[in-house]
Amino acid sequence: MRKSLENSIIDAVLAEDLPNAAHQLTQSSPLDVVSIMGRVGAHHAAVIFRLLAKDRAAEVFELLEPGIQGDIVRTLGGEDVVMLFAQLAPDDKAALLDELPAAVAKRLLESLPFSDQRVTNVILGYPTRSVGRWANPRVVALRPHLPVDEALQLVRQQASWAETIYTIAVVSDSRQLVGVVGLRDLLCAQDSRLVEDVMSPAQFAHVTERAEDVARRVVAQDWLALPVVDREERLVGIFTVDDAGQVLTEEEDEDSARAGASEPLPRPYLATSVVNIVRSRVVWLMVLAASALFTVHVLEMFETTLEQKVVLAAFIPLIIGTGGNTGTQAATTVTRALALGEVRPTDVLTVMFREVRVGFLLGAILGAAALLLATLAYDVSTGVVIGSTLMAICMLAATVGSAMPMIARTLRVDPAVFSTPFITTFCDATGLLLYFVIARAVFGL
Amino acid sequence: MRKSLENSIIDAVLAEDLPNAAHQLTQSSPLDVVSIMGRVGAHHAAVIFRLLAKDRAAEVFELLEPGIQGDIVRTLGGEDVVMLFAQLAPDDKAALLDELPAAVAKRLLESLPFSDQRVTNVILGYPTRSVGRWANPRVVALRPHLPVDEALQLVRQQASWAETIYTIAVVSDSRQLVGVVGLRDLLCAQDSRLVEDVMSPAQFAHVTERAEDVARRVVAQDWLALPVVDREERLVGIFTVDDAGQVLTEEEDEDSARAGASEPLPRPYLATSVVNIVRSRVVWLMVLAASALFTVHVLEMFETTLEQKVVLAAFIPLIIGTGGNTGTQAATTVTRALALGEVRPTDVLTVMFREVRVGFLLGAILGAAALLLATLAYDVSTGVVIGSTLMAICMLAATVGSAMPMIARTLRVDPAVFSTPFITTFCDATGLLLYFVIARAVFGL
Repeated sequence: MRKSLENSIIDAVLAEDLPNAAHQLTQSSPLDVVSIMGRVGAHHAAVIFRLLAKDRAAEVFELLEPGIQGDIVRTLGGEDVVMLFAQLAPDDKAALLDELPAAVAKRLLESLPFSDQRVTNVILGYPTRSVGRWANPRVVALRPHLPVDEALQLVRQQASWAETIYTIAVVSDSRQLVGVVGLRDLLCAQDSRLVEDVMSPAQFAHVTERAEDVARRVVAQDWLALPVVDREERLVGIFTVDDAGQVLTEEEDEDSARAGASEPLPRPYLATSVVNIVRSRVVWLMVLAASALFTVHVLEMFETTLEQKVVLAAFIPLIIGTGGNTGTQAATTVTRALALGEVRPTDVLTVMFREVRVGFLLGAILGAAALLLATLAYDVSTGVVIGSTLMAICMLAATVGSAMPMIARTLRVDPAVFSTPFITTFCDATGLLLYFVIARAVFGL
Repeated sequence: MRKSLENSIIDAVLAEDLPNAAHQLTQSSPLDVVSIMGRVGAHHAAVIFRLLAKDRAAEVFELLEPGIQGDIVRTLGGEDVVMLFAQLAPDDKAALLDELPAAVAKRLLESLPFSDQRVTNVILGYPTRSVGRWANPRVVALRPHLPVDEALQLVRQQASWAETIYTIAVVSDSRQLVGVVGLRDLLCAQDSRLVEDVMSPAQFAHVTERAEDVARRVVAQDWLALPVVDREERLVGIFTVDDAGQVLTEEEDEDSARAGASEPLPRPYLATSVVNIVRSRVVWLMVLAASALFTVHVLEMFETTLEQKVVLAAFIPLIIGTGGNTGTQAATTVTRALALGEVRPTDVLTVMFREVRVGFLLGAILGAAALLLATLAYDVSTGVVIGSTLMAICMLAATVGSAMPMIARTLRVDPAVFSTPFITTFCDATGLLLYFVIARAVFGL
């Protein structure tokens, strides 16, 4: 929040006045430091990190995104890195190792005690983007037959080690999950009762489930944490609402970037180099430009028509713009509904039938307005051409736009990556085709 | 999850086989019922709700979104509604009242005991979208000088009444917030110590802060709950991570809809009528179509040029498509960075300077590819025209696209509502202007 202090530290670092910067950094909270490091490039972020006192540095390191942690690891040397790495929770260790070159990752992993290596390797063994990668193994687990007062004693003992003590797993002797109990319920129960009297039925996620699906469930059902089990329903870790928040923030980064025809940035905006911003956009831009070549082809097909009635060119942007917007509207709505579970791929026909009607109404409204305005500005024939083209393109674009995300979901591809280029290509080219066919019919060309 | 049961219930309701539907509903969990009600229109949702047993109905009602709660209230009669309403938490009462016509809201409010009315009215007094609307007044508050064992006793007593017992506020005699203590810390402290020995410095939100900003803070800092205070720093309620999750989901609904040129839907997709879907899109579509009239004007200005070289029309979609995509990319990236606090409106010049360079590199890559392809397909002059136009439009669109969201934030308008039409209008029209000016220069028209 203290922007002037933030800017002052950044200015000092850029001016290489390091003693000044170091002094001001002591007045910043760990989160302020993380924020500052997110506003400068990788090189200066490392400089800032090295100016921190040792204990401060460990606090800050834990709060950094894995990507920036990786940058730090690459610039720092041996012992400091090993110490910072060892202090991370097992799932955070795994996330950081993902960001490092194989040789560096191997060295770091082997710097750990063998038991920690094993735990970390188990996590790395789960598929990327699965909830197993996020679940912290440091979960409090109680036996069902334990009296409540002894249970609370155990919880107190594990409080500094555990990820959370507010949601506790109840397991059998073979560590299979048999129930879940909240600290609130334990605390309010009579001491003589048993854990199994107080616990609720086991809610859990399987270790290979997609982290995003589990995160949405946790948020939708107002849970604070969810036990994670393996194939034999044995407890392997716990996934907290904090984890859910991070997972969903990353998903939203990705979804919002792709809806805007780009890839998500690997670092905060001001910490990303111009070259990396270009990298996140250039492929999309080239693919979309290539798809525009279809429209070049269609327009060349109708070059004679254009020569005979040049004014038709004036409405090309309006036609393809309306098609693009209508298709995007439908795709956006359906993509969001899919993400929230309001709609499933099996609903595809229901959805398309709704969108055909939506497109019809939108096209009728827009077409009527265009018919009126174009008739006043030009003549009835032009009005009929533009009005009927808009109506047709709205119906087509809405239907196609709604179907694309659901086809994408069935093919297990990202809906935005799949939908946007396809909608643009298909609707633009088909829209122009319709436009000229109608124009030729109405004007007798 | 049990889709076949869900579909079977919906089929029974649509076929008006109500005894069958009622029987199957007894096998569904409250969340399943909420999901089912989200897949049918308002009328059938009300039918389903009336088939529920009384206690089941109360559970389900609490889980419904305020909008669907409002639908139910409007269809149900007197006593049932009063009872359902009275059971809601104070902030949920306020949210529901917002959804009702004034007369109905007044009647419901007056059905409450006077103290409950007062509490609810206080919440309604806060600005919409402020955190005060979300904060639950049922917060556990302790005095600093209380010994830990007595504190835990108090917490146990309030456990069934309080929104949460895991984050506890510490207040002075005048109810001013002096600190915050987690249940974990209380539980692990020695009984003889005092609350003030164990508590942390007060973290809080002001009652008039935007709920979205507070929600992002809660998620970013991994808090489970945050006390909310009024202007005199007196405790008024607590904002939990559950609340944060709901706030951010609603914000994302809105942001993702507007990025796709539409308004967010008021109900789940399948529960929204075709007419309401059209309502969420038609204004956007008309505004964007109206902005396309600028391009009609520009193209009419250059009608002579087009007559002389009709093939220029073939590249119009490519030119404006590239401008639109580049502008959207920049706007999307900057909008997201603003939402996450990575960038502030005061960074506008820094951001624009980055984007000018990004646009230059993108334009150079795209322009070079276009120059090459167009030269091969047509001739060097055409290649030069298209290549240089694409380069110019990329630089312009990226710069303008990045500035719009920051100007919007400064004017306190939604960045997407402000940016999308402006970028489309400006970039399309300017892009075509540049295109024809360059074409006339190169071809000597």
